[in-house]
Amino acid sequence: MANRVDPYRVLLNEDEMPTSWYNILPDLPIPAPPPLHPVTREPCGPEDLAPLFPMELIKQEVSEEQYIEIPEEVQNIYKTYRPSPLHRAYQLEKILDTPAKIFYKNESVSPAGSHKLNTAVAQAYYNKNEGIKHITTETGAGQWGSALALGCGFFGIDLKVFMVRISFDQKPYRRTMIETWGAEVFASPTEMTNAGRAVLAEDPNSPGSLGIAISEAVEMAAQDDAVKYSLGSVLNHVCLHQTIVGLESKIQMEKMGEYPDVVIGCVGGGSNFSGMIFPFMKDKFEGKSVRAVAVEPVSCPTLTGGKYEYDFGDQAETTPLIKMYTLGHKFVPSPIHAGGLRYHGGAPILSQLVNEGYIEGVAYPQTAIFEAAMTFARTEGIIVAPETAHAVKAAIDEANNCKESGESKNILFNLSGHGLLDLRGYEEYLAGNLVD
Amino acid sequence: MANRVDPYRVLLNEDEMPTSWYNILPDLPIPAPPPLHPVTREPCGPEDLAPLFPMELIKQEVSEEQYIEIPEEVQNIYKTYRPSPLHRAYQLEKILDTPAKIFYKNESVSPAGSHKLNTAVAQAYYNKNEGIKHITTETGAGQWGSALALGCGFFGIDLKVFMVRISFDQKPYRRTMIETWGAEVFASPTEMTNAGRAVLAEDPNSPGSLGIAISEAVEMAAQDDAVKYSLGSVLNHVCLHQTIVGLESKIQMEKMGEYPDVVIGCVGGGSNFSGMIFPFMKDKFEGKSVRAVAVEPVSCPTLTGGKYEYDFGDQAETTPLIKMYTLGHKFVPSPIHAGGLRYHGGAPILSQLVNEGYIEGVAYPQTAIFEAAMTFARTEGIIVAPETAHAVKAAIDEANNCKESGESKNILFNLSGHGLLDLRGYEEYLAGNLVD
Repeated sequence: MANRVDPYRVLLNEDEMPTSWYNILPDLPIPAPPPLHPVTREPCGPEDLAPLFPMELIKQEVSEEQYIEIPEEVQNIYKTYRPSPLHRAYQLEKILDTPAKIFYKNESVSPAGSHKLNTAVAQAYYNKNEGIKHITTETGAGQWGSALALGCGFFGIDLKVFMVRISFDQKPYRRTMIETWGAEVFASPTEMTNAGRAVLAEDPNSPGSLGIAISEAVEMAAQDDAVKYSLGSVLNHVCLHQTIVGLESKIQMEKMGEYPDVVIGCVGGGSNFSGMIFPFMKDKFEGKSVRAVAVEPVSCPTLTGGKYEYDFGDQAETTPLIKMYTLGHKFVPSPIHAGGLRYHGGAPILSQLVNEGYIEGVAYPQTAIFEAAMTFARTEGIIVAPETAHAVKAAIDEANNCKESGESKNILFNLSGHGLLDLRGYEEYLAGNLVD
Repeated sequence: MANRVDPYRVLLNEDEMPTSWYNILPDLPIPAPPPLHPVTREPCGPEDLAPLFPMELIKQEVSEEQYIEIPEEVQNIYKTYRPSPLHRAYQLEKILDTPAKIFYKNESVSPAGSHKLNTAVAQAYYNKNEGIKHITTETGAGQWGSALALGCGFFGIDLKVFMVRISFDQKPYRRTMIETWGAEVFASPTEMTNAGRAVLAEDPNSPGSLGIAISEAVEMAAQDDAVKYSLGSVLNHVCLHQTIVGLESKIQMEKMGEYPDVVIGCVGGGSNFSGMIFPFMKDKFEGKSVRAVAVEPVSCPTLTGGKYEYDFGDQAETTPLIKMYTLGHKFVPSPIHAGGLRYHGGAPILSQLVNEGYIEGVAYPQTAIFEAAMTFARTEGIIVAPETAHAVKAAIDEANNCKESGESKNILFNLSGHGLLDLRGYEEYLAGNLVD
């Protein structure tokens, strides 16, 4: 430690926070395939999405502007918890005895506990701005539902959250968190929607799935002009809002005179990794050498085991078809603790970049990622979310590879959220009861 | 918000972190009354404390040096999460429609979730430095037990935590957190000590208390030379380590050109408030006008309803007698959610300053503090610990007083910890089941 050069954390003041998001769409080497209407299979126009989203978000979905200004009201809320710190993981490096430098962007410091608040605030703002007072959404593990509850609370919007039943039952404190911030939460499938009733008719004890919960939230929004829908991942505008993560990280790395050799993030729908990697991807399109590693669970191997094709975003086939890596929209993954990674599809832009070879995919089993999370907790102190543990595992593997090869690479990963509401997984790991 | 002048948060870089703690002992207007031996009732010498604490901490307990240098290894761990941010609560001010400015020091950003890590790291370091490999402690709500687990983990020390049984049963995830960081945790009273066995003989279903858990942890340390004991509050050296909180806050307020008119903190044993207020108290001794408000629960009104006299720190009368405000060492407070404030006594220095009129005490019932915590969660976003909610309530009351009087005062409080492991209290509040 005597030769410590970089600080433990690079902080930025609020006047150093980026004031625009980076939109990767105009920079893509091949144009993004358009979403298709679920019935006609023709490319969707704005009018097809208008029942679900405010117009400003629909515009962002297809925008060709390279930078989109962050509205002042959104910036003001960001500034209550952003810029987030970027850490050098000295203690982890020491225990791994690696010549690599490990850096992590700490999104767990948001009051909602993850990166999800970055888009929750933006989406709530654009809805409020167009006069919307009611929003529906779904949540799996609960990170998104709680973040949007807080985001909607800031702008006086009423929110209904369809929470996958198995999470609803296993995570009572996620429900409490959502209610503390003023939203309502229901165990999905519910009797409130056709989609929910259809599932319950077949299986009254259905544990639910993200695909079902999306169907319910979309249905409720679609049938009422006064109600819009909000999605926490996958879509282009969601990934756009998360680019604040990568933009800040670039500034912070530059302040240390560093640039990452490899950038890592976990992928469920793909928003946290998209947000981190897109600003670096811009450099890669311009010829810069940087590896991008997307990490997923072996039990839901969308990028590493799925097909790149058009598929529905939900179980009931009500969303537009999007071209993405998918395991099929009827796929129900096993109940691993990383509930946020249990989604059959992935963000279309991210999928496209994987398909074109710009991004690598890697998959790990559950016990391996908890083992990595334990190492991280005992060195860096932070108890990460099971989702984030996937990124930690990949970072440790990269650092171990460096030890073998003797290379001193810069490894950067997105610490997307803390696991303080997900301690059951740690409990099972400690008791030796965790299975893959 | 158009006339926002102060930033939302004042951050400090690691090279701006204070490198010494502030020791208030030499500045006290009246010398601190010494602790007395539990049997002889003579003032304790270092030899009386040596079975329990490493010598460096015993020296700090009575040091006359105004500033004590923070060891480099402790500074290095501090720098992984400190300096912590100081926030201006614009959103809370707005909803209260107050002319007051409200500031809060955010200690919830430590990986352990509270200020407790500040002394946990220091105590673990001094023990390690004197060759100690085993420590015992007690924990009530779990904040201290988890912080010390992490602190001991950093220095390779084995830790045994006696956790008050009612918390042990109600908070399984606190136990998981403690174990994740590598410590062992037992439901107190246990069969492992004379003190525990004596209580269980009388009541096999005893819910335990902090006083009993302290007796157990002290007994186990006292009977084995290789084992030391660690306390998370009350003692002078603990309050000393927490002064990093107030020292940073002063720098951060200065950076905005501000000085607090009133400084607020919750008080159980008294460490978070001591840490915040002592550096300001120094100014007050020198004639500066600053009010200090210590906040406690009406169900455990040590400062507002106790007597200032010599009493034991534990239930079994094994600790030295210390002069403090106390409700009597046999007092068992009602099972409120703010478990960290359920202690019969208080830090002797803090008690002395209350007795001499330098610090005011105020007490609130449980429903009032959760109502304040809800307001805070929905404006500033952070879900605070039930303990911290006491400080939030007092800050809101001060701001409301300013609204009535039209005064624009600067209100500063210590946000000592988050409540993400204490959501049961919020759940009961939301369900309307919370009682005082």
